[in-house]
Amino acid sequence: MSIDPKRTVAELKELRALTADDNGAQRVAWTDTWLKAREWFKSKLKGLPVEQHFDAAGNGWVTLPGASEKALLLGGHLDSVPNGGWLDGALDEMAGLEVLRRFASEFNGKPPVTIRLVDWADEEGARFGRSLLGSSAFAGTHSIGADRKRTDKDGIRMDEALRRCGVEMDRFPEAEREQKNAAAYLELHIEQGPVLESMQLPLGVVLGTKGVERHAITFHGQEAHSGSTPMKVRRDALAAAAKLALEIRSIAGKHPDAVCTIGSVKTFPGIVTAVVGRCEATLDQRDLDAGVLAQMYREAKEASERFAREEKCTVEWSRIWNIQPIAFHPALIERCEQAIRETAGAVHKLPSGPLHDAAEVSRAGIPTVMMFVQSLGGISHNKIEDTKEEHLEMSVLALDRLATKTVEWIQAGKAGA
Amino acid sequence: MSIDPKRTVAELKELRALTADDNGAQRVAWTDTWLKAREWFKSKLKGLPVEQHFDAAGNGWVTLPGASEKALLLGGHLDSVPNGGWLDGALDEMAGLEVLRRFASEFNGKPPVTIRLVDWADEEGARFGRSLLGSSAFAGTHSIGADRKRTDKDGIRMDEALRRCGVEMDRFPEAEREQKNAAAYLELHIEQGPVLESMQLPLGVVLGTKGVERHAITFHGQEAHSGSTPMKVRRDALAAAAKLALEIRSIAGKHPDAVCTIGSVKTFPGIVTAVVGRCEATLDQRDLDAGVLAQMYREAKEASERFAREEKCTVEWSRIWNIQPIAFHPALIERCEQAIRETAGAVHKLPSGPLHDAAEVSRAGIPTVMMFVQSLGGISHNKIEDTKEEHLEMSVLALDRLATKTVEWIQAGKAGA
Repeated sequence: MSIDPKRTVAELKELRALTADDNGAQRVAWTDTWLKAREWFKSKLKGLPVEQHFDAAGNGWVTLPGASEKALLLGGHLDSVPNGGWLDGALDEMAGLEVLRRFASEFNGKPPVTIRLVDWADEEGARFGRSLLGSSAFAGTHSIGADRKRTDKDGIRMDEALRRCGVEMDRFPEAEREQKNAAAYLELHIEQGPVLESMQLPLGVVLGTKGVERHAITFHGQEAHSGSTPMKVRRDALAAAAKLALEIRSIAGKHPDAVCTIGSVKTFPGIVTAVVGRCEATLDQRDLDAGVLAQMYREAKEASERFAREEKCTVEWSRIWNIQPIAFHPALIERCEQAIRETAGAVHKLPSGPLHDAAEVSRAGIPTVMMFVQSLGGISHNKIEDTKEEHLEMSVLALDRLATKTVEWIQAGKAGA
Repeated sequence: MSIDPKRTVAELKELRALTADDNGAQRVAWTDTWLKAREWFKSKLKGLPVEQHFDAAGNGWVTLPGASEKALLLGGHLDSVPNGGWLDGALDEMAGLEVLRRFASEFNGKPPVTIRLVDWADEEGARFGRSLLGSSAFAGTHSIGADRKRTDKDGIRMDEALRRCGVEMDRFPEAEREQKNAAAYLELHIEQGPVLESMQLPLGVVLGTKGVERHAITFHGQEAHSGSTPMKVRRDALAAAAKLALEIRSIAGKHPDAVCTIGSVKTFPGIVTAVVGRCEATLDQRDLDAGVLAQMYREAKEASERFAREEKCTVEWSRIWNIQPIAFHPALIERCEQAIRETAGAVHKLPSGPLHDAAEVSRAGIPTVMMFVQSLGGISHNKIEDTKEEHLEMSVLALDRLATKTVEWIQAGKAGA
């Protein structure tokens, strides 16, 4: 049995029919619909010579033992955001399954190295605001203390919701055991951005994931009556925030792949008849180069302080979250480039702005690379998320080629583990 | 019995003790605390030769019949915003009561013209978002059809809340009957702005209320992932709104008393990881000159369209509310100026940015003027709202002088009615 990319597309449609409603995919981690998706996935393993289990963080592992214990890991995630798309995470997982099937078939159930397919738990963090949950437990970069008390919109605690799915947060560290013998990690994903489409290329090699600086910025001015307060005596917190919202574009614009985003602005008291006394904004900055990221952060902070002074306001910064840039493995980047070229003719190399479980795996010291397939309109986390079927099929073929090259690389003794 | 301004201050403190909590005044119209304030006010009328009744819109009228049926109206409002101050509305009402007491005493209960004191219902519109409710019914400028279905934050309909207080909205037009014989209207109010304080003057004559253009402005761009969407392809609705938030300052700055305010900005989806796809802002523009107001509105609209184009967005405008500038009566402005000069030595003339019931009375064709007393720090609608007691006492004296001058003017046959 050779690789069958059309089966992957058919299975993705089957999963969509099972777990989406009129508003899109509803496979939010730690919900019944997500558990249903995992049951469905399990049914697809029937007849394969594999072992399946869940680790202490709820990651699902399917292992096809090989002649060597050294393992090639393939991964994805079955969870989605609410009202999400049919491909984000699921394509990775189902393409990985197709590749695993091919290895099982081609080598009579015993490939040269062990092939492991992982379904990461709660990549999206949609319910509790903590993404990459399962893969961070795997990598030993979890934050159990801070996370257990997180609550969802109904006030249900994270540790309670996970317990209901059989996962005890205190045991997260045990998930690190799955690192044993891991020699390389591959992940296919939709781009979720417009770059490949704009270049009319189906596939791209991901160089790494951008580092992120994510901050809450609050400008404090003076609430005042909009009718009785002359313009020249106002201390308008919105004006300072508006200047920053425009300035971040110049700050990002100095670097080819850098992005800076103010995604949320809240005004207080936030009524039509009052000058804004307090303005809360969020800033998200990303680049693949740590030096560029540090420079952008510094420039935004200085600009905000300058604008606060100009508007007779004050400004406070509070870090929401940050992560260093993570560069993928040069040898795997090279093999990914070859696999794409052999499949699609042309290839583009790009950093990933969104984070992925691959970043956590890479932080664990396991050689990692990702492959992107074009997203139509660059849209994701939305029911209209889509990719041409011919591109989906190409991506399965290219992942399969990359897997073969990576197995050879592992066999040659150049990989980790 | 002569005028006793210290009694007014003492009564205002009594009202505060009765109807404020740690967060400020809680006399929101159509609530139990407001009804309690009205009961308390009624208790202050004991022994005065007056008739009291409520009109069909819930305005409370106290009438001291005079030798002539021609009536001098004095007014204020006992309702407050939630967590409001002790003076806004209540000073006007209690100072008016003190003046009425003086007329009752000085003329043996029969002043030359009729003196009427009105407690306007729901000046603030705090619960249902419709200000000047009672005075607009009086003036015949109500909007029952649009207003009756308004709901408060608990979903209670306006018409139901009013019915509970004995007011049937369908009968609002009957309140116009109270216009009969009205010859002039006087209202004292705290400035709620910083102008008099900055000039170190206790009192000012109000020239009129500024016209207001109030609009909801929505910029539509494209929601996009903050990590995967290059800066140059973004359609950031926040950027367009930020440009407008800065531009309105230049638009207002061309005119000495004009103000433009963006008081509320809402971002959608409003999350740290997404470029803003939709940004909703409110704009409030005010000036005493109708031509200036129209020019500012036109310039803001054109600027918003230019910024939308620059950011590859679209923009929609929707009028929330507007009112024409209302100029007070020249003869009363002159008398108010004299009364202030006799009381405080110096006087300043200024327009009112905030609206007041006086604007509605003026729209009904009744000669009207307002007097402002200095606000400390220009703060109002807040528990820290305050005015020096010596200034409060001066304001009662000046209102009393103005009332005497206005009665003489009415007697001279120059007034309306």
